[in-house]
Amino acid sequence: MKLKKVYLDNAATTLCDKRVVDAMIPFYTDKYAVASSDFSHSPGIEAKEALDKAREDIANKIGAKFREVIFTSGATESNNVAINGIAMANKKKGNHIITSSVEHRSVKEAIEALEKEGFTVTWLPVSKGGFVSVDDLKKSIKKETLLVSIQHANQETGTVQDINSIGNICHKKSVFFHTDAALSFGRIPLDVKKAKVDLLSITAHKIHGPKGVGALYIRDGLGIVKCMYGGFNEFNKRAGTENIPGIVGFAKAIELIEPNEIKYIEKLKERLYDGIKKELDAVQLNGNQKDTLPTILNLTFRFVEGESVILHLDMRGIAVITGSACFSRSLEPSYVLKAMGLSHEEAHGSIRFSFSRFNKEDEIDYTIDAVVNVVKKLREISPITPDN
Amino acid sequence: MKLKKVYLDNAATTLCDKRVVDAMIPFYTDKYAVASSDFSHSPGIEAKEALDKAREDIANKIGAKFREVIFTSGATESNNVAINGIAMANKKKGNHIITSSVEHRSVKEAIEALEKEGFTVTWLPVSKGGFVSVDDLKKSIKKETLLVSIQHANQETGTVQDINSIGNICHKKSVFFHTDAALSFGRIPLDVKKAKVDLLSITAHKIHGPKGVGALYIRDGLGIVKCMYGGFNEFNKRAGTENIPGIVGFAKAIELIEPNEIKYIEKLKERLYDGIKKELDAVQLNGNQKDTLPTILNLTFRFVEGESVILHLDMRGIAVITGSACFSRSLEPSYVLKAMGLSHEEAHGSIRFSFSRFNKEDEIDYTIDAVVNVVKKLREISPITPDN
Repeated sequence: MKLKKVYLDNAATTLCDKRVVDAMIPFYTDKYAVASSDFSHSPGIEAKEALDKAREDIANKIGAKFREVIFTSGATESNNVAINGIAMANKKKGNHIITSSVEHRSVKEAIEALEKEGFTVTWLPVSKGGFVSVDDLKKSIKKETLLVSIQHANQETGTVQDINSIGNICHKKSVFFHTDAALSFGRIPLDVKKAKVDLLSITAHKIHGPKGVGALYIRDGLGIVKCMYGGFNEFNKRAGTENIPGIVGFAKAIELIEPNEIKYIEKLKERLYDGIKKELDAVQLNGNQKDTLPTILNLTFRFVEGESVILHLDMRGIAVITGSACFSRSLEPSYVLKAMGLSHEEAHGSIRFSFSRFNKEDEIDYTIDAVVNVVKKLREISPITPDN
Repeated sequence: MKLKKVYLDNAATTLCDKRVVDAMIPFYTDKYAVASSDFSHSPGIEAKEALDKAREDIANKIGAKFREVIFTSGATESNNVAINGIAMANKKKGNHIITSSVEHRSVKEAIEALEKEGFTVTWLPVSKGGFVSVDDLKKSIKKETLLVSIQHANQETGTVQDINSIGNICHKKSVFFHTDAALSFGRIPLDVKKAKVDLLSITAHKIHGPKGVGALYIRDGLGIVKCMYGGFNEFNKRAGTENIPGIVGFAKAIELIEPNEIKYIEKLKERLYDGIKKELDAVQLNGNQKDTLPTILNLTFRFVEGESVILHLDMRGIAVITGSACFSRSLEPSYVLKAMGLSHEEAHGSIRFSFSRFNKEDEIDYTIDAVVNVVKKLREISPITPDN
């Protein structure tokens, strides 16, 4: 049998679009100067214009103003700068932070670092579907609460939080609100003014832009403590030579998102889920069918090990992920799935499928066949069965 | 007259080599996965292999071990992580830092931030040639001294410090030694073991690699406080999705440095300097003729404004820089030149020429003509003359 290469892993969603690369190349090899001011020479001005245009495009996409967007090296930096930066700049106002138990590792660990510095943290639990209770959140806000950081969409299950309600509560209570929108940006509607967000993190490589570029929305008038010093770049909020090719690629990636592509991606996800459910028992959806990203499907195949499924699918040319990708260098099961109430065994049997504009229907059908086959065979030889 | 485009500014030295871009492209659009472990799927393993190879290449180039090199978003991040990271991890050992008055803004401001946190700082002066006195440095080390940060080569004049002597002194006195080698890496010999360096910052875009990628050498066994949290990447020293295409480009840029190219670049520099000196009086070298980078020539043309020279050269298609590039959004004269004893007027009349493998001899000759012409004309109309 001829092997196909089917990417339904992080690679699917982080593949850089060829048109993005084409847009970047001139800024590597031709319009390559450091962005500088009107006092400087022509190539510098060309680079500055590209930087300004990209910033404008990104600001427009999230309903922000030009001056409210700074560029970073990715969502990890954006999350760290947002959380540490706002906490350190405002520590006199309060020392209490509220977050969820399913945040991306960069939010989780940035907040844990503040915990060591004397901040107290409320780690909100989530429901079986992965949702934070807006009521719980409201109740946990106290006089000392400085910051709420709740992600827009989850990195492993795609569960989308109600950031509009959360943002409005924070606004009323005068608490800063940060949201990690790395996964949702460009996938579902996002408006910083509507959600009354103070700080929002996004990244290029999750929308087929280049790796190594992200952005942070910082509401006008908000002061943060810088994470890197060295000049006045990015409105004096982030030092370092601007990664102009990367930033241009980020803007291009936004431009390339077509209105219909989300519907297309959603159909691929439904096709895979329906196809697998029809042929296999004991398949459980981790997350929710409503309020979820179209780009992620997280399933647990009971009575099998996720690692074994991955290896067998890999031999058939299909790339998927188990547990948490960022954590896949360890064999620990995902803390996100555990927070959603999954047992150790259920978490280990979980497989995450990601979908993008680059996937085709026949890839989905090929994957359905392979998954059904692999899981059936593994279950036949598995020592763990429904009867155990 | 037909305009030529001659880049003798930062752009000259930061132009990304087309062969670097070609090496990066497959990692954007094909081998694009997140670097992951052996437990994961094939595209992830390919990305991991590329990451490992690049790390090995960079480690070899500076005489370091594989595990001593981590990737960052550039020299600004490397400098900040090195300085803040080592100071915060060891603040119980001492609170005194020694640095020079001509460091890159990212070192200068990272240390100023620590000054605000209660560290005391000795800002060593430099000689007219831009050199730190090794004796001065030795004398300023005291019981409380925790860290010495002295750059390898200066960003504006190319002056090269004697880091071998400095490193050995620090080693004997058990003081941590960091050096910012962003400008010197790949240009002059550099060996972390010989210079007994504890922390060393480098960046890709100064050797015709991509912008947005740097590296930090951290001597084996040294602990630092992370600047960004979010997972165990980079030996648990730097979180964030690895910028694999950028890292591959960094390694390619190193591979492309030919043994003879430095000699070639040096000749271009000498040709320009000699050509200008032959035709113009009152031209002063900022820096030194010995112990200097072949890639930078910093001259002051007395009795003219650097900004005017830049504009007139720009009209002739020649890009150069005045003052400090990173600072060129302001009209303040360079603090580096001021620290070297230049007057306000001398600093304002300074022009920095940068040279790279991409420059040709006829570009140099064209530039000599243009500079001589422009400076002569400006001097004719200048209100400041030797007689004023």
